[in-house]
Amino acid sequence: MTGTASLITIVIAISVFGLLFAAWLARWVLRNSMGSEAMRKISNAIKQGAEAFLRRQNRTIMTLALLSAVLIFVGYGVLREHRSFDPVGSSFELAAWITLSFVLGAACSVFAGYVGMWISIRSNVRTAHAATSSLNRALRIALRGGAVSGLLVVGMSLLGVAGLYALVNAFSSIQESGDIPLLIVGYGFGASFVALFAQLGGGIYTKAADVGADLVGKVEAGIPEDDPRNPAVIADLVGDNVGDCAGRGADLFESTAAENIGAMILGASLALAADANGVPFSAGVVGVMMFPLIARAFGIIASIVGIVYVHMDKDEEMDPMTALNRGYYVAVVLAMAAFGGATYWLLHSEQAPNAWWHFFLCGIIGVLTSVAFVYITQYYTEYKYRPVKSIAEASETGPATNVIAGISVGMETTAVPVLVMGAAILGAYYIGDAAFANTAGVNGGLFGTAVATMGMLATAVFILAMDTFGPITDNAGGIVEMSQQPEEVRRKTDRLDAVGNTTKALTKGYAIGSAALAAFLLFQAYIDEVLQYAGGEEAGFFDLPVNLAKPVVFVGGLLGAMLVFLFSSLAIRAVGKVAQSVIGEVRRQYAGLPRVHDIIQFPDDFEPDYGTCVDLVTKSALRRMIVPGLLAVLGPVSVGLLFRIFITKGQPLIAAEGVAALLMVGTIAGILMALFLNNGGGAWDNAKKYIEAGAHGGKMITAADGTEMKNPVHAAAVVGDTVGDPFKDTAGPSLHVLVKLLSTITLVLAPLFL
Amino acid sequence: MTGTASLITIVIAISVFGLLFAAWLARWVLRNSMGSEAMRKISNAIKQGAEAFLRRQNRTIMTLALLSAVLIFVGYGVLREHRSFDPVGSSFELAAWITLSFVLGAACSVFAGYVGMWISIRSNVRTAHAATSSLNRALRIALRGGAVSGLLVVGMSLLGVAGLYALVNAFSSIQESGDIPLLIVGYGFGASFVALFAQLGGGIYTKAADVGADLVGKVEAGIPEDDPRNPAVIADLVGDNVGDCAGRGADLFESTAAENIGAMILGASLALAADANGVPFSAGVVGVMMFPLIARAFGIIASIVGIVYVHMDKDEEMDPMTALNRGYYVAVVLAMAAFGGATYWLLHSEQAPNAWWHFFLCGIIGVLTSVAFVYITQYYTEYKYRPVKSIAEASETGPATNVIAGISVGMETTAVPVLVMGAAILGAYYIGDAAFANTAGVNGGLFGTAVATMGMLATAVFILAMDTFGPITDNAGGIVEMSQQPEEVRRKTDRLDAVGNTTKALTKGYAIGSAALAAFLLFQAYIDEVLQYAGGEEAGFFDLPVNLAKPVVFVGGLLGAMLVFLFSSLAIRAVGKVAQSVIGEVRRQYAGLPRVHDIIQFPDDFEPDYGTCVDLVTKSALRRMIVPGLLAVLGPVSVGLLFRIFITKGQPLIAAEGVAALLMVGTIAGILMALFLNNGGGAWDNAKKYIEAGAHGGKMITAADGTEMKNPVHAAAVVGDTVGDPFKDTAGPSLHVLVKLLSTITLVLAPLFL
Repeated sequence: MTGTASLITIVIAISVFGLLFAAWLARWVLRNSMGSEAMRKISNAIKQGAEAFLRRQNRTIMTLALLSAVLIFVGYGVLREHRSFDPVGSSFELAAWITLSFVLGAACSVFAGYVGMWISIRSNVRTAHAATSSLNRALRIALRGGAVSGLLVVGMSLLGVAGLYALVNAFSSIQESGDIPLLIVGYGFGASFVALFAQLGGGIYTKAADVGADLVGKVEAGIPEDDPRNPAVIADLVGDNVGDCAGRGADLFESTAAENIGAMILGASLALAADANGVPFSAGVVGVMMFPLIARAFGIIASIVGIVYVHMDKDEEMDPMTALNRGYYVAVVLAMAAFGGATYWLLHSEQAPNAWWHFFLCGIIGVLTSVAFVYITQYYTEYKYRPVKSIAEASETGPATNVIAGISVGMETTAVPVLVMGAAILGAYYIGDAAFANTAGVNGGLFGTAVATMGMLATAVFILAMDTFGPITDNAGGIVEMSQQPEEVRRKTDRLDAVGNTTKALTKGYAIGSAALAAFLLFQAYIDEVLQYAGGEEAGFFDLPVNLAKPVVFVGGLLGAMLVFLFSSLAIRAVGKVAQSVIGEVRRQYAGLPRVHDIIQFPDDFEPDYGTCVDLVTKSALRRMIVPGLLAVLGPVSVGLLFRIFITKGQPLIAAEGVAALLMVGTIAGILMALFLNNGGGAWDNAKKYIEAGAHGGKMITAADGTEMKNPVHAAAVVGDTVGDPFKDTAGPSLHVLVKLLSTITLVLAPLFL
Repeated sequence: MTGTASLITIVIAISVFGLLFAAWLARWVLRNSMGSEAMRKISNAIKQGAEAFLRRQNRTIMTLALLSAVLIFVGYGVLREHRSFDPVGSSFELAAWITLSFVLGAACSVFAGYVGMWISIRSNVRTAHAATSSLNRALRIALRGGAVSGLLVVGMSLLGVAGLYALVNAFSSIQESGDIPLLIVGYGFGASFVALFAQLGGGIYTKAADVGADLVGKVEAGIPEDDPRNPAVIADLVGDNVGDCAGRGADLFESTAAENIGAMILGASLALAADANGVPFSAGVVGVMMFPLIARAFGIIASIVGIVYVHMDKDEEMDPMTALNRGYYVAVVLAMAAFGGATYWLLHSEQAPNAWWHFFLCGIIGVLTSVAFVYITQYYTEYKYRPVKSIAEASETGPATNVIAGISVGMETTAVPVLVMGAAILGAYYIGDAAFANTAGVNGGLFGTAVATMGMLATAVFILAMDTFGPITDNAGGIVEMSQQPEEVRRKTDRLDAVGNTTKALTKGYAIGSAALAAFLLFQAYIDEVLQYAGGEEAGFFDLPVNLAKPVVFVGGLLGAMLVFLFSSLAIRAVGKVAQSVIGEVRRQYAGLPRVHDIIQFPDDFEPDYGTCVDLVTKSALRRMIVPGLLAVLGPVSVGLLFRIFITKGQPLIAAEGVAALLMVGTIAGILMALFLNNGGGAWDNAKKYIEAGAHGGKMITAADGTEMKNPVHAAAVVGDTVGDPFKDTAGPSLHVLVKLLSTITLVLAPLFL
């Protein structure tokens, strides 16, 4: 049962099962009623806007991806000379496989994002309608809608990697099966290439619409959130789908794909070393290499059980978050049991009988890390705790002190997660290292960190389902509000919406934690790969120390960190600029309305023109995603090529080393910046909610003369919340992708820097 | 003329000359009139506040420094075992020298900061009085007052290093003169230890008072800046002296001291290698090692000539900035000529006749880098250019978009400086490397980067004089405003004040650029030192690659970057918190005043209580500087010790390597974060000034009904300016010191991690 064919068959079978289950869930969701005419009308407007944006976005992305595919093919096939230690016989074949896997990765990523959005814009109105009768039903529709996306993302990434593996195995001229991952690294790069643009474009769209709608609607016109009189409100609701659903879907698709391949590369290295040193794994090299895929496949099943299990209690009094948590714990426990089974099955060695449970422990470290991240994120972003309260308090002295406090909290939130990550990396490394403590020459440390990453990602399907739950419930709330449902229905969707905000924040913490572990894994894969392409030990290269003390390497690191700052700058600016044009458009639509004391008096027959706002945001967001996107792609490539061309005197691998530093320091800076932006933004958001819940005077206060007036403390908090919007939903999530893109792009292009 | 004694004598003689010249300048400044009774009264209040703060601050800092001295002595003398390759014969002697140099460095730093403030609080009123008659005289008083500080800082740092060198040379049991710098590294650590707390305490003080005074005075009470009715106004003026003068003085004292020692360590290594490979320097090992001190000494003379040269044209129509620039160019040209002479004299080698001019080129790279930084800073922070204009434009849609735009600009400003730094480091490295192109085994690359740093710092005296010029003219403007001088005098001080704002921004750019080059130099010194203490080649250690691909090293890097974020968070928060208490105090003083329509009607006899504000800020700023200060000091130490204790299995230098990564990645993150904070803050400040100069409607606009009202665009810009205050004057400048402290602390404590 451990031959290549049977292992691949198991993985493919489970992936297909996951996809079929997704189809079943989708049918289950679609069978629910779409509600009243009014609801359907709003839902249709959202649907049209989201589909139009995604169509145009995909056209842009596919053009860029095809261009890159051509460049990759030319780079590998024409510019780079064949070397004797290449994994296949000719430059042309190498180029063909890498380009094929790139195109396939990109196509699958586009498809995964599209389907995620497709089901989400159909689940929202059904959730809204269900809320008119049963909260339990509404909860289940939203979660299962999200689960379709989650299953599709993880299933397809697995199917893609396993399928490509099978293809290469069957048709290429490859000599050693341990080299197969080198031919399919393009899959991860294709996926992250698409994910970067999807997350950037979607992220700019969603926050530009949100900021624009808020500033001119809530602040200037004084109408509530999601009010139908706001011309930007549909664009705002569309944004939730294209940013949070499609963007995050592509992001996690890419994570799972890249991490699977990275772990396979490390697994192959370890298994070969174990073979050579007399402690072979019982399941052979292929078994170890397949372990990540098998573990992931088991995780799919565990998550499915967890998702199906989620339900409210009979009288619907419980916190919906508790219902989700119960399902999550079911998934975690099952995933862990399956993980233990998989380690025993595939990572056991007769000669080193303790090895397998060392790796099992590494997996548990991964799970605990993800749990720790969830709690840390809660502490920093929920208003029960000190950080958010301090921001609310600082709002007493105006918007400036609110912003200062929020930035301070955001920067502070980097500390504990870094300590946890550091402990996890070192813990997994040294436990993995101890797996073969008695055998010199076999170091399981790096594979230990890879297994920890696998553990962290074991429940990715469930996490992704919870994440997509967020925009679905957010949209459902908007539909209920805009179709003017009774107060009691609104209260139900508000409860779901509040849970959705929490799950969205948690998954961001989870995503960044897994990005950190995964990045470390991908560095090692990169170094392994550089050494292989350089000829390895036969050519005299035993190791590639990434020595920061060398000027070229230090400058590479400096450039990597700079890339993170510049990229964040461009992403944040894009939101500001597009939001400014949204504000201009809304002001134009309001220009002719009568005013009393500068307050707009809406006529009863006022019909805003939603379409122009949707169109405006679509065009501007797509235009503004290009520069930061290309920066992320071309930055590392040009640094690598410049180093390669100008600095090689007596140091054959120096360009690869400089790029490695760019990758690693860029990753460190990216992780910290993402934590700062995500958590700072989340804390600002909840500081505002805390005041709205009544703290520091609430939204409205009574002036000395008895009139109701807006509370300036709340107004100050709104400023912070708005500043935080592009932080937490555009730049932050895009940085997750950037960090992984840096890894995959360097993995794919490494041979060109040698 | 190249014996140790004569070289040391030259350095000491020039340093003493610089100090005597400072005394002469001080007397020249003090001979000017202190103006009217009203001016003197205000000036006295500032003087008292500043002196009281510095006295208390110094007491706190000295206590902490003495505690550290004891710990260093115990660490070296008792806990660490003597090793055969230590530079001196016993642990006790090693501990004694390092502790002595630490204490001396700390004491000199305190003294330099104190004198800088002493002269600055005496120059301000004299500048104010001179402005009533002659702008030229006012300009020269302010610049020469600043020059006293500059000369003192550079002269003392040089005298300290040279004096310690002479002491060690005469009295210690040291064998090789190349090892002397190892005994005096403590001087740099002592200096940066004091600088960190001075810059933190002063920076918190100045911005908390500024933010507090602005928010409650300008925004709430609607009175202009520096209005005598604002109870926080004296605290604000005191802040300029204790933050900008005393803080920056300690900062640059520490830079020059640490960089001198670092360059000496690298020079000694290079000269020994050159000796061993048959290309000895004509001036010997000592000559090369003394080169940094000689170059610096020549720079003092060049700067003196430049400072004396500064004057306005006869009719006082020219831009005072032009007058300063002319003097600066004189200093630069002279410094370069002297630099060329010094390289030919001390870095010439008969056997490698081209070596010296390679190093001269490295020096020129350093100078060009400093000029580039000056221009880049101008582009990003002056309102003639796109970045600041974009922030002003974003203010049209309110404070939130203003803040978003400012953060985006701040992050963007990291890009070009990093490219310049990267080019400078690589350029200097490869030119230095080519100096001995024909001799294998001698690599002048690292010393080339050290020489570039020397070039950059050649005009440090002049730069520091311009920097201190800023707070003196700022204070002079405040005194003129508060003593209600005629409009015409105010216009003169306003012209000087505007120039002062520019010079302050420029010196920050210069400081961060030199910190980057210097940091790279200090890394190399650290690695050299670790190898020496570990026994060097005899013990089998040829090199210490700081290999980021190792888990421990990667985690070290992660922790270093995190330290920067956490430190910035604490510094920014401190300002926010102290400012909030200032606002509370001012509101308390205003509470009883009559109001019409919520606008305070000040009675004619209203006398605010300045003292309580000064006292409040003094106490709170000192309390809040402790935690971030200790974090910066204890962070790297505890990481080093933890790594040392828990992770050494088979890797004797792993703790030193992990700490090196903490240092290097921390430096990269620190440089980028400081650029972001400094330039972002400067851009916000000038966006506000741009609007005040009339753009986007100016300060006041005319409403539809004809009444004058505050322009909301200006109000939005004030929010950004306030957010930028702690960025640019507290966290940013403190990060410069943090970066250098990381270097000096690891240099001093390296032996404890082995």
